[in-house]
Amino acid sequence: MTDLVTFGETMLRLSPPGDERIETADQYVVRAAGAESNVAVATQRLGLDATWVSKLPDSPVGRRVTGELASHGVETDIVWSDEGRQGTYYLESGESPRGNNVIYDRADAAVTTATPDELPVDRIRSASAFHTTGITPALSETLAATTQTLLEAAADADTLTSFDVNYRSKLWEPDVARETLTELFPHVDVLIVAQRDAENVLGRTGEAASIARGLAEEFDFEVTILTRGSEPALAVADGTIHEQPTFEATSAHPVGTGDSFVGGFLSQYVAGESVETSLEYAAGTAALKRSIPGDIAVVTPEEVAAVIEGGTADISR
Amino acid sequence: MTDLVTFGETMLRLSPPGDERIETADQYVVRAAGAESNVAVATQRLGLDATWVSKLPDSPVGRRVTGELASHGVETDIVWSDEGRQGTYYLESGESPRGNNVIYDRADAAVTTATPDELPVDRIRSASAFHTTGITPALSETLAATTQTLLEAAADADTLTSFDVNYRSKLWEPDVARETLTELFPHVDVLIVAQRDAENVLGRTGEAASIARGLAEEFDFEVTILTRGSEPALAVADGTIHEQPTFEATSAHPVGTGDSFVGGFLSQYVAGESVETSLEYAAGTAALKRSIPGDIAVVTPEEVAAVIEGGTADISR
Amino acid sequence: MTDLVTFGETMLRLSPPGDERIETADQYVVRAAGAESNVAVATQRLGLDATWVSKLPDSPVGRRVTGELASHGVETDIVWSDEGRQGTYYLESGESPRGNNVIYDRADAAVTTATPDELPVDRIRSASAFHTTGITPALSETLAATTQTLLEAAADADTLTSFDVNYRSKLWEPDVARETLTELFPHVDVLIVAQRDAENVLGRTGEAASIARGLAEEFDFEVTILTRGSEPALAVADGTIHEQPTFEATSAHPVGTGDSFVGGFLSQYVAGESVETSLEYAAGTAALKRSIPGDIAVVTPEEVAAVIEGGTADISR
Amino acid sequence: MTDLVTFGETMLRLSPPGDERIETADQYVVRAAGAESNVAVATQRLGLDATWVSKLPDSPVGRRVTGELASHGVETDIVWSDEGRQGTYYLESGESPRGNNVIYDRADAAVTTATPDELPVDRIRSASAFHTTGITPALSETLAATTQTLLEAAADADTLTSFDVNYRSKLWEPDVARETLTELFPHVDVLIVAQRDAENVLGRTGEAASIARGLAEEFDFEVTILTRGSEPALAVADGTIHEQPTFEATSAHPVGTGDSFVGGFLSQYVAGESVETSLEYAAGTAALKRSIPGDIAVVTPEEVAAVIEGGTADISR
Amino acid sequence: MTDLVTFGETMLRLSPPGDERIETADQYVVRAAGAESNVAVATQRLGLDATWVSKLPDSPVGRRVTGELASHGVETDIVWSDEGRQGTYYLESGESPRGNNVIYDRADAAVTTATPDELPVDRIRSASAFHTTGITPALSETLAATTQTLLEAAADADTLTSFDVNYRSKLWEPDVARETLTELFPHVDVLIVAQRDAENVLGRTGEAASIARGLAEEFDFEVTILTRGSEPALAVADGTIHEQPTFEATSAHPVGTGDSFVGGFLSQYVAGESVETSLEYAAGTAALKRSIPGDIAVVTPEEVAAVIEGGTADISR
Amino acid sequence: MTDLVTFGETMLRLSPPGDERIETADQYVVRAAGAESNVAVATQRLGLDATWVSKLPDSPVGRRVTGELASHGVETDIVWSDEGRQGTYYLESGESPRGNNVIYDRADAAVTTATPDELPVDRIRSASAFHTTGITPALSETLAATTQTLLEAAADADTLTSFDVNYRSKLWEPDVARETLTELFPHVDVLIVAQRDAENVLGRTGEAASIARGLAEEFDFEVTILTRGSEPALAVADGTIHEQPTFEATSAHPVGTGDSFVGGFLSQYVAGESVETSLEYAAGTAALKRSIPGDIAVVTPEEVAAVIEGGTADISR
Repeated sequence: MTDLVTFGETMLRLSPPGDERIETADQYVVRAAGAESNVAVATQRLGLDATWVSKLPDSPVGRRVTGELASHGVETDIVWSDEGRQGTYYLESGESPRGNNVIYDRADAAVTTATPDELPVDRIRSASAFHTTGITPALSETLAATTQTLLEAAADADTLTSFDVNYRSKLWEPDVARETLTELFPHVDVLIVAQRDAENVLGRTGEAASIARGLAEEFDFEVTILTRGSEPALAVADGTIHEQPTFEATSAHPVGTGDSFVGGFLSQYVAGESVETSLEYAAGTAALKRSIPGDIAVVTPEEVAAVIEGGTADISR
Repeated sequence: MTDLVTFGETMLRLSPPGDERIETADQYVVRAAGAESNVAVATQRLGLDATWVSKLPDSPVGRRVTGELASHGVETDIVWSDEGRQGTYYLESGESPRGNNVIYDRADAAVTTATPDELPVDRIRSASAFHTTGITPALSETLAATTQTLLEAAADADTLTSFDVNYRSKLWEPDVARETLTELFPHVDVLIVAQRDAENVLGRTGEAASIARGLAEEFDFEVTILTRGSEPALAVADGTIHEQPTFEATSAHPVGTGDSFVGGFLSQYVAGESVETSLEYAAGTAALKRSIPGDIAVVTPEEVAAVIEGGTADISR
Repeated sequence: MTDLVTFGETMLRLSPPGDERIETADQYVVRAAGAESNVAVATQRLGLDATWVSKLPDSPVGRRVTGELASHGVETDIVWSDEGRQGTYYLESGESPRGNNVIYDRADAAVTTATPDELPVDRIRSASAFHTTGITPALSETLAATTQTLLEAAADADTLTSFDVNYRSKLWEPDVARETLTELFPHVDVLIVAQRDAENVLGRTGEAASIARGLAEEFDFEVTILTRGSEPALAVADGTIHEQPTFEATSAHPVGTGDSFVGGFLSQYVAGESVETSLEYAAGTAALKRSIPGDIAVVTPEEVAAVIEGGTADISR
Repeated sequence: MTDLVTFGETMLRLSPPGDERIETADQYVVRAAGAESNVAVATQRLGLDATWVSKLPDSPVGRRVTGELASHGVETDIVWSDEGRQGTYYLESGESPRGNNVIYDRADAAVTTATPDELPVDRIRSASAFHTTGITPALSETLAATTQTLLEAAADADTLTSFDVNYRSKLWEPDVARETLTELFPHVDVLIVAQRDAENVLGRTGEAASIARGLAEEFDFEVTILTRGSEPALAVADGTIHEQPTFEATSAHPVGTGDSFVGGFLSQYVAGESVETSLEYAAGTAALKRSIPGDIAVVTPEEVAAVIEGGTADISR
Repeated sequence: MTDLVTFGETMLRLSPPGDERIETADQYVVRAAGAESNVAVATQRLGLDATWVSKLPDSPVGRRVTGELASHGVETDIVWSDEGRQGTYYLESGESPRGNNVIYDRADAAVTTATPDELPVDRIRSASAFHTTGITPALSETLAATTQTLLEAAADADTLTSFDVNYRSKLWEPDVARETLTELFPHVDVLIVAQRDAENVLGRTGEAASIARGLAEEFDFEVTILTRGSEPALAVADGTIHEQPTFEATSAHPVGTGDSFVGGFLSQYVAGESVETSLEYAAGTAALKRSIPGDIAVVTPEEVAAVIEGGTADISR
Repeated sequence: MTDLVTFGETMLRLSPPGDERIETADQYVVRAAGAESNVAVATQRLGLDATWVSKLPDSPVGRRVTGELASHGVETDIVWSDEGRQGTYYLESGESPRGNNVIYDRADAAVTTATPDELPVDRIRSASAFHTTGITPALSETLAATTQTLLEAAADADTLTSFDVNYRSKLWEPDVARETLTELFPHVDVLIVAQRDAENVLGRTGEAASIARGLAEEFDFEVTILTRGSEPALAVADGTIHEQPTFEATSAHPVGTGDSFVGGFLSQYVAGESVETSLEYAAGTAALKRSIPGDIAVVTPEEVAAVIEGGTADISR
């Protein structure tokens, strides 16, 4: 049986090597990148049996995506389509003050037309947990409806539902997002939201703890996690606040850190660990991710444990 | 004054290095690639003053295209747009029996919405020559109308008009193409068409010479060029048939050979050389292109002359 | 249910880029390479549900192997070991007269200690088919015994057994090989052997057809396939000889061609196709492999079909 | 009409990849690098219409230089020569305490024989501004005379003249430099000089402000800019001192920072902006450059504006 | 005459490029790496005439090792063997908290069977100095005996003997190491040991100076050097304590720093310089190494001198 | 004792990767390349003890040259100079009809000022053989005189002298070359000359055999070798003609084939083998070289023997 099913878009990420610029580079490094598949990979590598569900163009470009995900052990359950393109994004990294630059080219991706009747809903119903993010309903009206249906189906089948708000300002306006999201929330058990999005999108104000408590109460989430950048993350569960500081990390490859946090959390929580333990694992996984190129947390349980124990997996010989 | 203006789409071409596969490669080589810009570059490098006109997304990805073209000396006159994407295509090369594989991802490119009122029509009117291809009207209805308008404007201003049929089966059906093209032909002075396209798209039959003559007479072209793969090309001008054999070449990089042929031809014909001389130059440029990575003929007049003289620009020391 | 289980060693192949030399290169390209996993990948890509069974060191180097195989959809069922190393081999490619050069560094690989009690024998028993090669029993005495046991178990469970002689002169002497192999043959249903090995190792003489018939009769194979380099392959089944010529191919990447042939054959034969059809598919897959870097046939059913139909999957646009 | 003409040498820069050493690397990264062309590119990218004038060997190596510059939109107006070589320099970068290492190989470059009669002096006369640096007269006696003539011609035509002292100890002795430079200064409107060079070469002493004022008064510069490494730059114009702090930047790629500062300044000053605004733009451009590989400021006006506003162009999605 | 002979194993080091992971990389960078050859190279580059003695497989892989060492001027005196493999190790580097990861694959290397009768003992006897490390006797019982014999032969011939404890926990247990090492120490003149190893392996306790003095007295070493990571190194000679702080360095490439320290020391001490001068040189060489990829100190005497003088070999132009 | 000393210039060869063009490439592959060092490396690898003598700039760029040569075991005996540059050349390779293109940038190399009094003439006098080529006297008048002196010194000391005419039209005119060369020939024992150079430079006419005989008689060479491209080479010794056909080879990397031929010949002839045997070895080495990137014959005696025996060192496993 599958422990976790995730659903969403995975793009091909095209990046100039090193700190070269998109405009002048002659090669782009290619990687699979998607919030929900990032989570699937992280949980699979950390012990769950994960499946990523999506819709992709039936082409070598689409298979480039599933090949990379499958190399980490994730099962991919794909609607292969003759319509719709493979979404891509261009990512350029530079040191300060240049920073990172992202150019999305994801319109009309095959996944934007995915409907529940072509997706393996039964897998979601029979899985222990289901995870998706706020990116998915933002991609198309069809996907907004599909997300709603899938969450309902999962909730109906007592599959634990997890949802990362993951607001993307290039995809939709805050008020549209809020309206859509609050329709989804009643079917969500575990909510992860950045404090910034809780404020700007969900319209919350006040201290972090009171924001988390407020969301937990309003939507009756089983677990409500508020991430806060380099400040400690907060979780509310059963009315109790848990605080989890970040682990120290240089941050050569920050993209995907949030998904790694979620992946670390779910890998433990779905396996039955406590919120506290799961949060610690989330923070350890996120710290490690920051040292790893690409969007994906190519980590092992031993490495996460070493970070949590405060050590660095440095040369032992 | 500009000698030649070309108009059309230029894509970013993404290719796995060497003979790797799209599906498994971790880097893609990036190059600018478009039939009309290929012609502009070839003519610029071979002596003309060429300008490429188009519409691109206002982003580093769009500037990646103009940067590469400008590096060959071509002037780029661009409508920079906030709407529409940068078209791309994936190209994989392999030895026999694998061959090459092309996956287009060009839908909704910024250029597909280009209208005459935003394009520099006066540059076309004041240039010596204007060139576009059958790919352009195939990309959108808007572009079909724009192509018609630009050809009319050029013809009206006594700018020599050149048109390469360049049929792409992935873009439109033969009968739709025929209808559109035959509306454009009355405004065309120099027509280039592959014999295969003359047969399958334009519905011609018979021997090559009679096909060429038939087209020349029906549409009153100044020059009608029939290309025939590895067999000699034919041109009809003033009722006379000119035959130009291909030069021997291994063919490591065949993509772009046809555009190089057209570029070689126009570089001479627009400069006042005879059809015969221009055809020979076309064949020499095309042969050289087959040894050069990418879509573009990175050649010099000296190199083309050396090929025509039968020599190979081998080590001299 | 699994269609095909294969068992054997997969090495990391280390190759200088392009035609550089092992002795002077500063980078080695890394790929997973093993006769039995090559077959598993080919069959998985061509439609079967394949599992590769083996024993690997529990390290990133071992996971480098499973990651690449899993990226093609193959399930990997691995005994992860703290003892034994990851076998490697150095492969250098050069044009004539240099040729290819192989240096094995596979002694003491973890797999050499694999015993039936730690391997998933039930998966083999419940699969439709089981495949291994003559390399496996050559690697250690333990593996020779294990191979014997696995083939017996498969035969006992009516799992179709397939065996490719694949003689490696660097691993064992011909007479030792013959003795071991002839003890395995009674449990084999499908035998694949190069004519050269049939002569030098199995001591057969005479014309190809009579060699094939002789083997078929002596060991009562269901199918006996004799491969003959660039000459047509022969198969004997039910007393009938089937001849399958090779498809034309330049041969940039010949390593792994034999495994691709076997993979092509089994992908059809296990799916219920005739010997004739399966042989044709084998030859098509093998021809395509010759154009693909690495040991693995990164092909699709559509591509194999195109080669069989005589076409080349060249640019269609 | 051209806004800015620059004149000087551009070398091919050969660098080992990453932090490899010149002595042991097997590949060198190739880039065009020259103080005056760096300025031309920066101003072109930031809004001016810039032309770079020089003399280069008529070869692919010379065209490698113009191709890269033209890719940024700069017009190149070149005397193509059969005599003289393409200057090169080897640059190695390493972290502390290794630092950077530069080996010039620029003797006998084609440009060292450039005389006013072969150069497009009329372009300089008709341009809004003309810029060169102290490197140019240091390269040869011919170039010292040519620099003098060009500055005089520009001044005579009321073209704004800009001059960056850019002292290179490997090219000439301080006293020779001082003598030559002080003959050029009467024709200069905008002087840029590092405080270190003002002291060691021009023999100035005292506080920065008094050095700047002293130079301004002695040579009657319109604008006198004193750069001071990581300390604020000073400008004197109309007797007023303007101070411009540097923007924070990690400094992965410091080579070319000074030219970027000048380019940023001229892009605004030539366009009619105030000294204060131009200085701020100079500092913003210089800060961005430190994050960009190569000698050239591959930046956009939007990026410079973002740095000035204190933001970092980090991921927005 | 050779100044310094070193004896030990050199492996091929295989590293993913940049900060990629072993598990997912498609290329590994190849470098020669061995404690004793690292020392030989450093001393050769810093002025000695050094020879590295070892046993290697007679193959391109073995020659890959000698070729790289010889490129630095070291003479290699090798027993070329048909038995035994080329030891390798996989090294992955990552920023904090990932750190570095080492996977040894050095069992059964050809060198593990090296005996004094096949090695050039006379070269050691006639050299000024002989150096080996605690890695060598840890590799096999044969090598433990060989190390003993070679140190005795050197001592007997009044060749200065140098020994770096270099404890490797993956090769042997502390108590086994202690027993073996203390049998070797009576033949050693210069001992280098990390404080950590002095404590954990040699069982010393107390302050650094008293540990150093204790070792010096017990084994009558001519020079006893205690290295202490980023804290000052200590040396005891003739009863006097010398303290040498480390030079500041970012530490992009720490692997091989210890060997560079020893190489820097011996390059001076063997040439007759004082312990104090030699220690300073050791620290300077070690600091530079931290900026240089690979295990080897690709440095020059001028660069070491510059670091000692406090300068950074930064751009001078 | 040294078997063979060679003297001449070695350049750094800069080549675009694969079949890219000099004009558009962003990286150049770096290799040491020089006729005389190529011969030294080939002979060293094939069994002689070879030393290469030259003068180089005292810089990392100069050491890049000696490092690569030393990696093949050649001893380098260098005058390190503060004056003069490191000669370079740009080499571009392309398939037909493009061919190869060479751009020399070797003027004012440090070696052009090398005089006998700074060179190790005694090494030449004490060596078994001395080899140089017609490139050396062509580089400068100083080198012409030095070449003369070195050949005289060698001849005087009964060191076998070998000379490859190696005419370079970019370095000198045929009649100047003839005059200089014919002054050197009286001191030469083994002459190697291409038939084309014998005709165009030395003014010989007639059949190959009569040209070889004529040269042998006029200058009293011990051995006179006439190479003839893909046709058999001829040697005259003791009045007897020996003919040696070329071995079949694809020719991916032809540069350096002639030097490999000479290296193969001298490796045997200096070791006492017959002219016939030496010629065969020359042809075998040359054929292998054509498959090896760079100028240098990275070959082994076993590989040359395999080619001579008609085999191809193809995969044996």
